[in-house]
Amino acid sequence: MRLADLQTPCLVLDRAVLTRNIARMNARAKELGVTLRPHMKTAKSAEVARRVHGGAVGPITVSTLAEAEYFAKHGFTDMIYAVGISPDKLDRVAKLMADGVDLKILTDEIGVAQAIAERGKALGVKFRTLIEIETGGERAGVLPASPELDIIGKTLDEAGMLAGALAHAGHSYGADGISEIQEIAEDERAGVVAAAERLRAQGRKVEIVSVGSTPTALYGKHLAGVTEMRPGNFVFFDLFQTGIGSCAIGDVAVGVLTTITSHRTSRKQILLDAGALALSKDTGANRHMDAGFGLLRPATGALPDKPLAILDVHQEHGIASYARGLDQVDPFPYADYPVGGRLVVLPNHVCMTAAMYDRYYVVDSSKAGGSDEVVDVWDRVNGW
Amino acid sequence: MRLADLQTPCLVLDRAVLTRNIARMNARAKELGVTLRPHMKTAKSAEVARRVHGGAVGPITVSTLAEAEYFAKHGFTDMIYAVGISPDKLDRVAKLMADGVDLKILTDEIGVAQAIAERGKALGVKFRTLIEIETGGERAGVLPASPELDIIGKTLDEAGMLAGALAHAGHSYGADGISEIQEIAEDERAGVVAAAERLRAQGRKVEIVSVGSTPTALYGKHLAGVTEMRPGNFVFFDLFQTGIGSCAIGDVAVGVLTTITSHRTSRKQILLDAGALALSKDTGANRHMDAGFGLLRPATGALPDKPLAILDVHQEHGIASYARGLDQVDPFPYADYPVGGRLVVLPNHVCMTAAMYDRYYVVDSSKAGGSDEVVDVWDRVNGW
Repeated sequence: MRLADLQTPCLVLDRAVLTRNIARMNARAKELGVTLRPHMKTAKSAEVARRVHGGAVGPITVSTLAEAEYFAKHGFTDMIYAVGISPDKLDRVAKLMADGVDLKILTDEIGVAQAIAERGKALGVKFRTLIEIETGGERAGVLPASPELDIIGKTLDEAGMLAGALAHAGHSYGADGISEIQEIAEDERAGVVAAAERLRAQGRKVEIVSVGSTPTALYGKHLAGVTEMRPGNFVFFDLFQTGIGSCAIGDVAVGVLTTITSHRTSRKQILLDAGALALSKDTGANRHMDAGFGLLRPATGALPDKPLAILDVHQEHGIASYARGLDQVDPFPYADYPVGGRLVVLPNHVCMTAAMYDRYYVVDSSKAGGSDEVVDVWDRVNGW
Repeated sequence: MRLADLQTPCLVLDRAVLTRNIARMNARAKELGVTLRPHMKTAKSAEVARRVHGGAVGPITVSTLAEAEYFAKHGFTDMIYAVGISPDKLDRVAKLMADGVDLKILTDEIGVAQAIAERGKALGVKFRTLIEIETGGERAGVLPASPELDIIGKTLDEAGMLAGALAHAGHSYGADGISEIQEIAEDERAGVVAAAERLRAQGRKVEIVSVGSTPTALYGKHLAGVTEMRPGNFVFFDLFQTGIGSCAIGDVAVGVLTTITSHRTSRKQILLDAGALALSKDTGANRHMDAGFGLLRPATGALPDKPLAILDVHQEHGIASYARGLDQVDPFPYADYPVGGRLVVLPNHVCMTAAMYDRYYVVDSSKAGGSDEVVDVWDRVNGW
């Protein structure tokens, strides 16, 4: 099977780039002396998770219970569900634990910690719970020196259900440059370690001290006191990660294969069959570059010097022209973009884009002619 | 099964509101003297399509070939695939036609019209093709008085493959008020009818003259010369349609059921388990109201006078507080929003939001206590 045989829009994954991205993050984890627990919220694929762990199962992070159930079916047993849990989800967690999955959960709420302890007791299950620590992101978590931390720690520890402390420096995505990422990484590390030390000083056992985010994992200076890191986006990267300096544009491993359906010569545009559903409406990368809803490269080549971008999307239509006004080629080189021709959209935010698809068509640019041959098809899990 | 038994996030559909919305659009089609060919890009559900046609199969519009295949399996035979086709998709269309589906296709490109004629001849299939007409939306289509129209018409007609002309006034979504919608509706009608008349004057047979969009279907003054209309969003409506005046907020039939996972008391916020994937990143309704990523109502009640909105989203987190600064209640009434409690998010743009889910949990607010009882589960089709 070749790219030309695929129905568009669909996801294309370059195995060679994936392998390189994984090697880079494994080297970082080794250098920092922590376990790599990749966040599967991005790839949602057992094949990708196994590759991070050298072909075997290993520790992973999940963002939904649907992911936990999928990875359990694929033999993964060591997981953290890294989204604050609501009590109604505990029975589903207990079922996975009964099946032998060491599925750890997360909370930052006193009431939920109590509900976890009570439901665990009622079910005869020792839920393994991490406490979410806020280190500056203003999303979730208790502060490292807060009375809430002490109460949640006591509640969980006395029930035998305290497993550790976890922070996610999601605000690293808003950083301006690598030195700011390094500051945020240190806040993340220091905050979660302070919380763990405070709990230990109160006699609590804190086994896991976990940090996350692709930018902080790549640029943090050290991880003293931390046991593991949970980056996720790094397996694929995207235009946003390129913009904040996590990667080069050639490190983006996943794109959307699309077909040119029409020429809009009066407006120097082309129409594509990749629209809002195929790409998502995430435009985050435009903070860093004129990316529109994604930049266009040839189906089997690199991004050209003067790329087209998807400037507007409707549900199933993408409207593309030059990304930057200065790049205009006049007249528009329609011969390079024939109707029926194929392009690949480099996504703004791959976690959002990939979520619309149930599989990856895998190519391998390290093989001669490999970028055009579909060497494998990998599934992924969506939904909740 | 009751709402409390569901795992969140999930889609909840109120059958009573759906029924009312369908009755309204059927009345409009009758009043305008045209066939209603609902666009299933929004609902993507055979149950919803059948309800538009009084419980039977009937003409529909689809936005993907995956939809065409799904509806064919459910017995629907009269369809328009209303996105400009690329030649690589023709064999999939031919297969559906061989199975007895009258699947009509669309183009606005001379080269594609030629490819349709050639591929049809090679396969021994008379593709039934509509010509897309631009009437102001600047997305797709040839102009009604253009030489391209004549050439495409000739190419298709001589191959015995011309079925009609079609316009979509997508720019009605950008209208300011009902009188502007009415102007756009008249442009849409007049443009597509002019194209049909021009083709007929050249001796072409033009069977279908099709217009679309929920706002123009609701507010167009007359549809002289038109044979059918293709609104889609009207079955569910959303905050955007509320904003442009297509419906009242009580007409929104679909929402996302979500669970409160945490209180952020220091910021007067609550955290929810419906984030960017559960809601989409579409923020279009904010042109008309402070909707954030969606407004929150109780799981079984109407929108409160001072609603909360989802102010920010991460992949699996929604952060909610008062939609409008003036609405602040001080102190924040956390007792009304307990951790573990359920809310429904009214979506900005339901076509984008619903696309993340594979089913609707159906309630019926016209029954006593019906808003809380899951009376049915309807599937939907996603992907391509």
